[in-house]
Amino acid sequence: IGSHLAEADSQTEWTDVQKKIIPWKNSTPSLDLEMAFQDRAAKLGKSNSRLIVVASLIDKPTNLGGLCRTSEIFGASALVVGSLHYIQDKQFQHLSVSAEQWLPLVEVKPSQLVDYLQQKKTEGYTIIGVEQTAKSFDLTEYCFPEKSLLLLGNEHEGIPANLIHHLDVCVEIPQQGIIRSLNVHVSGALLIWEYTRQQVIKQKQQQ
Amino acid sequence: IGSHLAEADSQTEWTDVQKKIIPWKNSTPSLDLEMAFQDRAAKLGKSNSRLIVVASLIDKPTNLGGLCRTSEIFGASALVVGSLHYIQDKQFQHLSVSAEQWLPLVEVKPSQLVDYLQQKKTEGYTIIGVEQTAKSFDLTEYCFPEKSLLLLGNEHEGIPANLIHHLDVCVEIPQQGIIRSLNVHVSGALLIWEYTRQQVIKQKQQQ
Repeated sequence: IGSHLAEADSQTEWTDVQKKIIPWKNSTPSLDLEMAFQDRAAKLGKSNSRLIVVASLIDKPTNLGGLCRTSEIFGASALVVGSLHYIQDKQFQHLSVSAEQWLPLVEVKPSQLVDYLQQKKTEGYTIIGVEQTAKSFDLTEYCFPEKSLLLLGNEHEGIPANLIHHLDVCVEIPQQGIIRSLNVHVSGALLIWEYTRQQVIKQKQQQ
Repeated sequence: IGSHLAEADSQTEWTDVQKKIIPWKNSTPSLDLEMAFQDRAAKLGKSNSRLIVVASLIDKPTNLGGLCRTSEIFGASALVVGSLHYIQDKQFQHLSVSAEQWLPLVEVKPSQLVDYLQQKKTEGYTIIGVEQTAKSFDLTEYCFPEKSLLLLGNEHEGIPANLIHHLDVCVEIPQQGIIRSLNVHVSGALLIWEYTRQQVIKQKQQQ
């Protein structure tokens, strides 16, 4: 990570990408993100979702790059990562296929997550942890609110106990096999899809 | 691929894995697969699905390894690959996290696919191509039959025209972003999930 900073080409790309990055900690974070929504919605020529995917706990550049591509394709409003340096990583770029140029990226370090989640709650987001717990909802039974924030767990440790307390709800994917758990990019993709599917059906019912 | 054949450790693992591989071209292919279903269902302690995931057109070991893990976790009855040599690949193994030891794997070369699909049709499977075409069903509107066979396209060329004619139906994932298409492992995972979700809901309604 960051090893390509000295390369001229990457440096140029970095400057381009930087324009699309929204700093979280500034005076009017919600206003800035709102503007990014609208900018993106205009580009896409249709209304945008209110889904935020938080991947700050994820370590592997391949998983982050994959999530960036998948989040962009389903029109998520932002991807939150633990460090913007991941964008420089060749493996991230290989998997993201340049989605980071279109999807708003926000940097929230793991140590800032409690504050960030609290802030999003006050903005009306439901904080959804993707985690197997005794109280988790089954994904086949969960109805996503329009303003949903998905918190994905670390590849090895999942979501740490101190963050579980700050979630509104946990959702788990029912699994039938012998292998214990899905890859975190796939888990994230399934929840992003399920959110999207439910929104599409709601929109059709309103027509 | 195959470069690790000479390593003693891989050779040992290969022998173990080989026992779980079902040859397609033998006198009673359906009977053998039926026995594998039952063996696996017994291991899982519950009824098994009738979903076959065909990945013969996929080239990248990472995508195949990931699909192996995801197919196993959702209890698919088999994963079909273009060559069993992929199982030897370190990238495949890294992504599959040993799922190939539990999920029945079948080798069907791309040149054998037409025959294989025809055979599965006579066994009652609906042949579903995951592809964007003018006549594709939207994944939010498609109801999967119990006996479903998913044919996934190549990373670059999708499903070739000569195979499209042999499909019963095409299903596409509605995409909203600027990036053109999902990774093939993710596309496959979303259809496997959607099949599973519908089966779970059907089972609950029957109770």
